[in-house]
Amino acid sequence: MRLTFENQRVLAVVAHPDDAELLCAGTLARARADGAVVGVCVLCQGDKGQPQPPLENLVEVRRQEMTAAAELLGAELLAGGFSDGELFDDSASRQTVIELLRRFRPTLVLAHAAADYHADHRAASQLAEAASWFAASAGQKTASPPLDAPPALWWMDTIEMISFVPQFYVDVSQLVDVKRQMLRCHQSQLARGGDADFSPLETLLLRQCQTRGAQAGVQAAEAFCTHAAWKRTRAW
Amino acid sequence: MRLTFENQRVLAVVAHPDDAELLCAGTLARARADGAVVGVCVLCQGDKGQPQPPLENLVEVRRQEMTAAAELLGAELLAGGFSDGELFDDSASRQTVIELLRRFRPTLVLAHAAADYHADHRAASQLAEAASWFAASAGQKTASPPLDAPPALWWMDTIEMISFVPQFYVDVSQLVDVKRQMLRCHQSQLARGGDADFSPLETLLLRQCQTRGAQAGVQAAEAFCTHAAWKRTRAW
Amino acid sequence: MRLTFENQRVLAVVAHPDDAELLCAGTLARARADGAVVGVCVLCQGDKGQPQPPLENLVEVRRQEMTAAAELLGAELLAGGFSDGELFDDSASRQTVIELLRRFRPTLVLAHAAADYHADHRAASQLAEAASWFAASAGQKTASPPLDAPPALWWMDTIEMISFVPQFYVDVSQLVDVKRQMLRCHQSQLARGGDADFSPLETLLLRQCQTRGAQAGVQAAEAFCTHAAWKRTRAW
Amino acid sequence: MRLTFENQRVLAVVAHPDDAELLCAGTLARARADGAVVGVCVLCQGDKGQPQPPLENLVEVRRQEMTAAAELLGAELLAGGFSDGELFDDSASRQTVIELLRRFRPTLVLAHAAADYHADHRAASQLAEAASWFAASAGQKTASPPLDAPPALWWMDTIEMISFVPQFYVDVSQLVDVKRQMLRCHQSQLARGGDADFSPLETLLLRQCQTRGAQAGVQAAEAFCTHAAWKRTRAW
Amino acid sequence: MRLTFENQRVLAVVAHPDDAELLCAGTLARARADGAVVGVCVLCQGDKGQPQPPLENLVEVRRQEMTAAAELLGAELLAGGFSDGELFDDSASRQTVIELLRRFRPTLVLAHAAADYHADHRAASQLAEAASWFAASAGQKTASPPLDAPPALWWMDTIEMISFVPQFYVDVSQLVDVKRQMLRCHQSQLARGGDADFSPLETLLLRQCQTRGAQAGVQAAEAFCTHAAWKRTRAW
Amino acid sequence: MRLTFENQRVLAVVAHPDDAELLCAGTLARARADGAVVGVCVLCQGDKGQPQPPLENLVEVRRQEMTAAAELLGAELLAGGFSDGELFDDSASRQTVIELLRRFRPTLVLAHAAADYHADHRAASQLAEAASWFAASAGQKTASPPLDAPPALWWMDTIEMISFVPQFYVDVSQLVDVKRQMLRCHQSQLARGGDADFSPLETLLLRQCQTRGAQAGVQAAEAFCTHAAWKRTRAW
Repeated sequence: MRLTFENQRVLAVVAHPDDAELLCAGTLARARADGAVVGVCVLCQGDKGQPQPPLENLVEVRRQEMTAAAELLGAELLAGGFSDGELFDDSASRQTVIELLRRFRPTLVLAHAAADYHADHRAASQLAEAASWFAASAGQKTASPPLDAPPALWWMDTIEMISFVPQFYVDVSQLVDVKRQMLRCHQSQLARGGDADFSPLETLLLRQCQTRGAQAGVQAAEAFCTHAAWKRTRAW
Repeated sequence: MRLTFENQRVLAVVAHPDDAELLCAGTLARARADGAVVGVCVLCQGDKGQPQPPLENLVEVRRQEMTAAAELLGAELLAGGFSDGELFDDSASRQTVIELLRRFRPTLVLAHAAADYHADHRAASQLAEAASWFAASAGQKTASPPLDAPPALWWMDTIEMISFVPQFYVDVSQLVDVKRQMLRCHQSQLARGGDADFSPLETLLLRQCQTRGAQAGVQAAEAFCTHAAWKRTRAW
Repeated sequence: MRLTFENQRVLAVVAHPDDAELLCAGTLARARADGAVVGVCVLCQGDKGQPQPPLENLVEVRRQEMTAAAELLGAELLAGGFSDGELFDDSASRQTVIELLRRFRPTLVLAHAAADYHADHRAASQLAEAASWFAASAGQKTASPPLDAPPALWWMDTIEMISFVPQFYVDVSQLVDVKRQMLRCHQSQLARGGDADFSPLETLLLRQCQTRGAQAGVQAAEAFCTHAAWKRTRAW
Repeated sequence: MRLTFENQRVLAVVAHPDDAELLCAGTLARARADGAVVGVCVLCQGDKGQPQPPLENLVEVRRQEMTAAAELLGAELLAGGFSDGELFDDSASRQTVIELLRRFRPTLVLAHAAADYHADHRAASQLAEAASWFAASAGQKTASPPLDAPPALWWMDTIEMISFVPQFYVDVSQLVDVKRQMLRCHQSQLARGGDADFSPLETLLLRQCQTRGAQAGVQAAEAFCTHAAWKRTRAW
Repeated sequence: MRLTFENQRVLAVVAHPDDAELLCAGTLARARADGAVVGVCVLCQGDKGQPQPPLENLVEVRRQEMTAAAELLGAELLAGGFSDGELFDDSASRQTVIELLRRFRPTLVLAHAAADYHADHRAASQLAEAASWFAASAGQKTASPPLDAPPALWWMDTIEMISFVPQFYVDVSQLVDVKRQMLRCHQSQLARGGDADFSPLETLLLRQCQTRGAQAGVQAAEAFCTHAAWKRTRAW
Repeated sequence: MRLTFENQRVLAVVAHPDDAELLCAGTLARARADGAVVGVCVLCQGDKGQPQPPLENLVEVRRQEMTAAAELLGAELLAGGFSDGELFDDSASRQTVIELLRRFRPTLVLAHAAADYHADHRAASQLAEAASWFAASAGQKTASPPLDAPPALWWMDTIEMISFVPQFYVDVSQLVDVKRQMLRCHQSQLARGGDADFSPLETLLLRQCQTRGAQAGVQAAEAFCTHAAWKRTRAW
């Protein structure tokens, strides 16, 4: 069996600059190889992830890092500009995300799982869901015109695969190296090894896609669930 | 077996002007036939559901439509006055809904399921739950006096029955026509067939109550779950 | 709200002679007060529940005890005659239970939950489900003619309310004394206080129906779920 | 998105002669159109589904009916030869099903959901799971050689969509007519309208695939879950 | 088996002044007996729980009551100072709770279950989760320095054990009296017997810890689940 | 936090000779270090796991291998003597397992999860549950006297962590080497690399305990759930 992404426009909506690498970059690369247009929308600036010694221009550095990673993937980068730890599903934030979605015009959105470990991931999950609905609603005015239809929505795996029961797996066996190369663009974060809330990211990335692969009979995989809701679920 | 609604005051708290028709109007009619007093509290104005060509006085039109539908049902109509897409469970909105509930004084509230497809439905679900608790709390001051006790609360089915596992079914076989007649009051919406976020509502209404009926051995049914929480669950 | 049982024939299918007392006797009494015909089908003989000193005619004693309890309730007693610890959902056992069901002709069956603590309860749960389906199948021949339709089926609470999430509660506030009087008929078991696998049953009975009552706003309740399956679920 | 079945060998393992029509025939037709080889393995003979007046040679008639239906689909037919109501996951039955699977050599098995309404469906579900594992085990000897690997396994929807939460949907909008034509091959069953345990099958078939379609944005769909277990889950 | 709390700093984060008594005081006492440092952080003032006749200085009275209860337990008391019914997981509230957590520096937080009956309990649950993560994040500035690591987090039982499936039980058989004595410190609440939203608290306390005990083979127990999320779950 | 196993008698009941190594050997070693007596009860002989070229005396070889592994652990070995692929929860098999349990006299049983990938694992799960209950029932006669009380029961993780949601984790960071050494005792299996139903076991063992460790903040862990049932759940 194989899922094909041709004619799709696939947009990952993530909380922080390095989340797509860990959770869905292989799937985006697969989609691109199928001819899909792919994008990454990073909602937060990564402004609270300071290495030691701190970088004065951390926001700018992280912007460059995520730009480089998106280029490796051949993905359009969209930036929400929110502050880390300040992400909420409120009216103003929805407007911002609706407009970002209308610029990319996705047919499929990849969003954080509702129960991921970080409050920003959970807020990003709620925002991606609500905004991708309202993006197709003519009554919700922003600078860009509404989408033709609400995009499909898939929930991504959680960090370290906790509290996430996969519904299906995408084979990314040939794309592990892309994920690693993208991750290595985030030098400011790889230098944070000593922080209380930081872990060796490359080890984590490999463990996760190899374990998901072992669960699905391939070398590496990414795991997803579909958003089961009216006009959001698709027959394949 | 039969559930009887006598001596109850049943209030549906819905997000949009035509939600009660789709999800609970048959049950309200059943309750009324048992001697219960019934009401519909519509939180949003329906102000973003423009047909083509647009109606200048859409809010007023939709108010008339829902009034006509409520009259068909013999239900009291309460209106929250919120804007579509702007519904959140915050402090001010709770106060508004608490006061509405205190005016009707329900013993049973029917509310949207927590996982319905539309962000407004989910916010309406949270607001109905929180406000119906606080409506019985003497410490929460609004214009009207507190309820004697928090009302029971049932969660309604979702649109197209997605992500909703019914706990029990109410037989509405004799009341399908009431549901249809009420739906036909919403002429502004029935004219919206071409919209990206619109579907043929009458087809949807019939499919849903007939499918729920087929699952429960009758011609038509509506499906519910109870809110399982202290002082909200009732023994029958 | 109130559930009415008029015109029903309600049969509890339990594993051991004192299970109905603990889990559903109040509901049976409620049904009977509504005009329903009620019955208790005890699948096992209770032959491994010896008090100290042991009773030579234990099976006969337990038969008398359950007869007395059923009489208090005004219920017909049916006996499966299986040995304790030897209950399985196999072909021969199904035939036995099908015939018992065809004699009583229930419209509603109360059965043990699929996840109750005792292997006999779980086998009784499977047997009650399968046999109550096949009892209405003309192709399954036994001494008595098939039922007109498969009965509805409710799952009863588990002992000590573990691993059971109630869907609805039946108010048995007025019927706690009936439950106690019935339990006291089982003198052979009340004498087993020192056994490794025995607990003070009356304390357990009261704790369970009072706790379920406290969860549902009444003095005492019994908790149930419906069997959600084609032709087994009913709209109320 | 589209799931492609090329190079697959897809086998539906169902309990009764007309189950594949209701639950998976559209997906089999899709797979065949993708170039897959498809088959239907019917475990029971349908010997207890007598119309009025009864057919003396019912087993033979049903064999002809299912053969005709399989021909319409272009599917190989395999027959388990078990009696209706006598299906259990025991050692001898597993041997029978292992050998059937080794003859067809599936890479994907479609099996009944574990919680479907009929005891035979549930036994068929257990047998399909166990036998499709052991079919690849060299230590389990039958007439045919073992499979190269355990096939993937998908759980099919339940009758009337009760107690089944779909993980994904297969678009069968173009294949509703095939499903209907196949169903009409089962004339012995379509004549059973008056039976206690029988329903108008064509109405049921249409309601189910149209409702699943409405949930997934297409005219008609079939719903599935994957078997999540080691060596049985596949990355797509 | 026994869980030992030595070297831990255990902080209960509760919504109202008497919640810890009902849900976790026995576990805190157990932890303290093992040598742990324990604390109770009460987020709301209890300002809407007026007895009749009302107390002018209710906030002050409740502060004294909770101080007395914490003293009985040997626990440090922290107060959030929020108003009853006004608790939300927003940015400012998080800052307040982060600072409280940084003062106590817990290694284990006990928080309300996500599905408890009261909107304040649910908001307290969200706040405790988010704030205990951000308390260890150097980028989140408050008066006190960040924690060395995010604390483990356990979800407490709900009031009357509704909608809570325990993962594990802590034996508090020897500590029921401490729970009662602490509860009796809340004289302003024990006097509220006639309120619509008030129940006899001591009866409730005993029923809950005795029922949880009966489920776990001891005289009294408190029930918990662990927060399953990256860096929050601990191996024991 | 730490779970202590002192004064326990812990028995793993597994399907095949190398299952304990993969799923619970670290926990058994932890228990033994706490002073507990530990045992491994292997129900099947491993007689269908032939390497190439086949071993004539495979059953004897596997018996020696598991004996050697148990010795490394300091565990008593009990053997069920069932054939691979022939394990069912029937009356005779229960008697066999009851007697094995009565010989070891466990206070805690570790059993396969109900949803593990292999039919033998699932049957072993059912047998361990039923037999460990009946082992304490005086009415169930075998050669050895009944246990004083039914043992507690924990469900072990599944192979590759699929369809298992851990409730708690046991830290086995210091015991990975024991697990590996034990696994290396099973030379007949490590030689099976080319089989259709075989995977590199040591890789699997390391991936599983390291991933479970990463989820719980340690180098290596084993994951469990408790059996939630009357008299089987314990307060810690």
